[in-house]
Amino acid sequence: MASLARVFSGIQPTGVPQLGNYLGSLKNWVTMQNSGQYGELFYSIVDLHALTVPRDPRVLRKETMEMAAAIIACGVDPQRSVLFRQSAVPAHSQLHWALGCITPTGWLNRMTQWKSKLQSQSELQSQGGLLTGLFTYPILMSADVLLYRATHIPVGEDQVQHLEFARDLATHFNKTYAHLFPLPQVILTRSKRIMSLKDSSRKMSKSDPNDLSRINLNDSDESIRLKIRRAPTDSIPGITFDPESRPGVSNLLSIYAALKDMPDPGEAAQAMASMNNKQMKDAVASAVVDALAPIRDRMRRLLDDPSHLEQTLRDNEARARDVAEQSWREIAQCVGLPHY
Amino acid sequence: MASLARVFSGIQPTGVPQLGNYLGSLKNWVTMQNSGQYGELFYSIVDLHALTVPRDPRVLRKETMEMAAAIIACGVDPQRSVLFRQSAVPAHSQLHWALGCITPTGWLNRMTQWKSKLQSQSELQSQGGLLTGLFTYPILMSADVLLYRATHIPVGEDQVQHLEFARDLATHFNKTYAHLFPLPQVILTRSKRIMSLKDSSRKMSKSDPNDLSRINLNDSDESIRLKIRRAPTDSIPGITFDPESRPGVSNLLSIYAALKDMPDPGEAAQAMASMNNKQMKDAVASAVVDALAPIRDRMRRLLDDPSHLEQTLRDNEARARDVAEQSWREIAQCVGLPHY
Repeated sequence: MASLARVFSGIQPTGVPQLGNYLGSLKNWVTMQNSGQYGELFYSIVDLHALTVPRDPRVLRKETMEMAAAIIACGVDPQRSVLFRQSAVPAHSQLHWALGCITPTGWLNRMTQWKSKLQSQSELQSQGGLLTGLFTYPILMSADVLLYRATHIPVGEDQVQHLEFARDLATHFNKTYAHLFPLPQVILTRSKRIMSLKDSSRKMSKSDPNDLSRINLNDSDESIRLKIRRAPTDSIPGITFDPESRPGVSNLLSIYAALKDMPDPGEAAQAMASMNNKQMKDAVASAVVDALAPIRDRMRRLLDDPSHLEQTLRDNEARARDVAEQSWREIAQCVGLPHY
Repeated sequence: MASLARVFSGIQPTGVPQLGNYLGSLKNWVTMQNSGQYGELFYSIVDLHALTVPRDPRVLRKETMEMAAAIIACGVDPQRSVLFRQSAVPAHSQLHWALGCITPTGWLNRMTQWKSKLQSQSELQSQGGLLTGLFTYPILMSADVLLYRATHIPVGEDQVQHLEFARDLATHFNKTYAHLFPLPQVILTRSKRIMSLKDSSRKMSKSDPNDLSRINLNDSDESIRLKIRRAPTDSIPGITFDPESRPGVSNLLSIYAALKDMPDPGEAAQAMASMNNKQMKDAVASAVVDALAPIRDRMRRLLDDPSHLEQTLRDNEARARDVAEQSWREIAQCVGLPHY
């Protein structure tokens, strides 16, 4: 059975990822790949989804390649996983249309992300409201997953509703036309959320204007050590894991535990119980440097040879298209389009 | 300049067309093709649009081929025009997504067809409302037109708002990214609306359950004569063109005038002024039979050799893809997707 399992996961082309992306998604992609539990793994840089937010075209293209380099540098092996840019596979857009034709608008209206965007967009009303791509986004996401007949989808908690949507849509398609799609299962990414190094109440994010708030996968060793040294802690003696009352210390422990594959950051706290804050930070910084230095070096080498990276992606995209086009032919056949 | 003009027009795959389709669209397609005024003509059987309404997949596929045969039989020459199934060109769906990412939902909400569907769909609310494909339909229609950088779009009056939408979207894209799209111009199809042969207050339509209400392009000569003989007229002596008070007679005169390329049905009335209803009907029936008999025979021959018809379409679809894929590459480049 295991060999029939297919993984799909997507990541936005946001340039060089920060540590939170690595621990929240990419590290997990590598673990799934290396586990041998899955027959095929499709990892997509979702540049079509990126268009739902206005972006400078040159920056988007540059950040797509940086993300590609980072993914490979983190350990996704383009020989074993299929790593591709979503826009290189036209069937995503084709299935987006076909699924839109069976998706009631009410399903989209009740998506939490859409509703929260509607509430915060009063200033946009005068320009005609939110963009249609944002509205139909969950349909494209369903197409991503269903096109590869993915059975296992690693996602964070904020994406669970979108996966439910994809399952509902798959069920609806299967009933309307023919039983074509397996229902994709959510694999909740277990990793704790990594918080900002400046404000422990917010997620670590690329969009924070303060670079000291995050560790980027291409930060130098010195920069990593500096950022961790400057991260807020507290004056409570000893090291304990307690996110409520010790958010800064606990965030550093979460980073350490995630890097060391400890399921419980409390374990890290116990190992460091007798340390002071400086010693603990040194230990965390060393763990981060040890993990990221080889990634940074591989990423730099990949970005130094853009035509080789491009070729790697193109080879993978041809593999993705083989699978996706075969799926699309079957879907087209189901809905009454011609056989090609 | 004339050779730079590009025509795009689409027609739903509704099977063998009726006379209203022929006089309202197909005859005009042929006239435009034969005029020599246009550099290139793209005529599409819009099977993706057809998915916005639930259809039996086998019927949809069959009716797509019937429409293809009818179009060629009417005189669209697949050597001179490009006749293709929309779904055979993935760039329509790709551009649909990209344009959706710059289309405010408010633009779609104010489309008249959408609003009238919203009003008549209370029974659907419980199932989640109208389908998303119906909502985003104007975006796909814009993609159809813009992908070929069409400059001239023959449409009926009911489609004028959709063309305005496409122009607005083209302008918006040109401002947001780069001046890529010429603004398509509407060519209003001049032909009078052809009404039902049973109820002169309604358009002639394939969806009318009464076959006597319409003339199909594959009706036999006898069937054509019978249907026209049974069409309602009135007891006012003589033949005059007056749609208000003589809708039945005027409809037959409109059919006659359109077939004979008379711009004014009043002209036809003058020519028949001294006839009685029976004589007038005979004249109309003969005109219809003369026009449709050769179309019917060509259509039958085309449908008798499905693999040749399929090959004709595939050859044309390769030509459409050449143009559309080149466009899509330029669009993708504009919005920040990779160069392929």
